[in-house]
Amino acid sequence: MIRLIVVEPEGSYNVGFIARLVKNFEVDEFYLVNPKCKMEEAINFSAQGRDILEKKALIVSAFDDAIKDLDIKIATSSIADNEGDLLRRSIKPWEIGKFISDDKKIGLIFGRESVGLTREEIFKSDFLLHIPGNPAYPVLNLSHAVSIVLYEVYKLRTSSIKNENISN
Amino acid sequence: MIRLIVVEPEGSYNVGFIARLVKNFEVDEFYLVNPKCKMEEAINFSAQGRDILEKKALIVSAFDDAIKDLDIKIATSSIADNEGDLLRRSIKPWEIGKFISDDKKIGLIFGRESVGLTREEIFKSDFLLHIPGNPAYPVLNLSHAVSIVLYEVYKLRTSSIKNENISN
Ligand SMILES: Nc1ncnc2c1ncn2[C@@H]1O[C@H](CSCC[C@H](N)C(=O)O)[C@@H](O)[C@H]1O
Ligand SMILES: Nc1ncnc2c1ncn2[C@@H]1O[C@H](CSCC[C@H](N)C(=O)O)[C@@H](O)[C@H]1O
Ligand SMILES: Nc1ncnc2c1ncn2[C@@H]1O[C@H](CSCC[C@H](N)C(=O)O)[C@@H](O)[C@H]1O
Repeated sequence: MIRLIVVEPEGSYNVGFIARLVKNFEVDEFYLVNPKCKMEEAINFSAQGRDILEKKALIVSAFDDAIKDLDIKIATSSIADNEGDLLRRSIKPWEIGKFISDDKKIGLIFGRESVGLTREEIFKSDFLLHIPGNPAYPVLNLSHAVSIVLYEVYKLRTSSIKNENISN
Repeated sequence: MIRLIVVEPEGSYNVGFIARLVKNFEVDEFYLVNPKCKMEEAINFSAQGRDILEKKALIVSAFDDAIKDLDIKIATSSIADNEGDLLRRSIKPWEIGKFISDDKKIGLIFGRESVGLTREEIFKSDFLLHIPGNPAYPVLNLSHAVSIVLYEVYKLRTSSIKNENISN
């Protein structure tokens, strides 16, 4: 089971795009922690993901409510792991496969456009996932980071269902 | 050498996001064929990819001008390959690795938000790339499709530079 958690998103377009991605990549659960944007505007960017916003998305007010029943919590960060001061083991998107299994509840946690996740939120997670990119500018827009991680998870889940290695 | 080609994009936000992605994933060349949106508005969505729009992006008026000197042309489509009527061999994002080499000019071609690429544009390409997703709704937003393909290419290029297989 995969739960996508987006913490205090600020851009309605990102929330709309993410709802669409939840449908594109068949995410099981979608939590929004205290969204800071207008949900009615988000619908304009959701295309056929509109019903995800209207029916599937769960809005909670606190980070802890979104993570409490998860087996594995994977936070994400635009900052690479070569900075020292490490709070959590750092992983790459294609390593998520090690954790995915039908009997585990996995949370994928994304942060605010402006300041990402707080140190406290990262500290409450088990791993910190970083998508590699230009060392001079690895900071992706929020919904594009979500798309890449959901794509990797979809690829891994469908390859294990088909019991064949398509990820190579 | 990787050239990203976006044909007649309609949404300025997509053009801005794509410019940011060009910087995030260090794409060599960026062509826009006859953009249908306001480039000044695109800048609002480009973050630190602003200089890509101002200096790197090349605007051409015809599809043929964007593809003429390429060795391999990879068109993309939201329609999966199990429909029959294939004009081109269909490949998956992680198969791009077979074509990437330092001495080849590779074009990655993306279509209009409304109607994708025309049959004629696809016919002029060598391969048709499809990102797998929900069979009931595999149609990604344009810039999110771009992010996934550029991520795979970046992964493959950096892994071959490092001469190690990170894509598994
Ligand atoms: N494996 C890891 N790799 C990188 N940073 C890590 C890490 N584990 C913990 N961290 C911490 O997480 C922080 C980055 S994420 C937090 C970013 C912050 N909200 C901001 O935008 O300024 C780092 O400064 C580091 O203190
Ligand atoms: N390269 C990358 N790898 C993993 N997640 C990324 C990413 N780029 C952006 N994100 C995701 O997108 C969110 C918004 S980007 C946050 C940027 C903020 N200035 C900061 O320094 O943290 C991040 O919290 C993270 O969830
Ligand atoms: N699953 C997918 N795989 C590959 N490219 C995709 C994709 N989803 C969207 N795209 C890209 O995003 C562009 C806009 S989406 C185009 C949708 C249009 N209604 C159609 O039926 O074609 C496409 O032309 C393609 O370049």
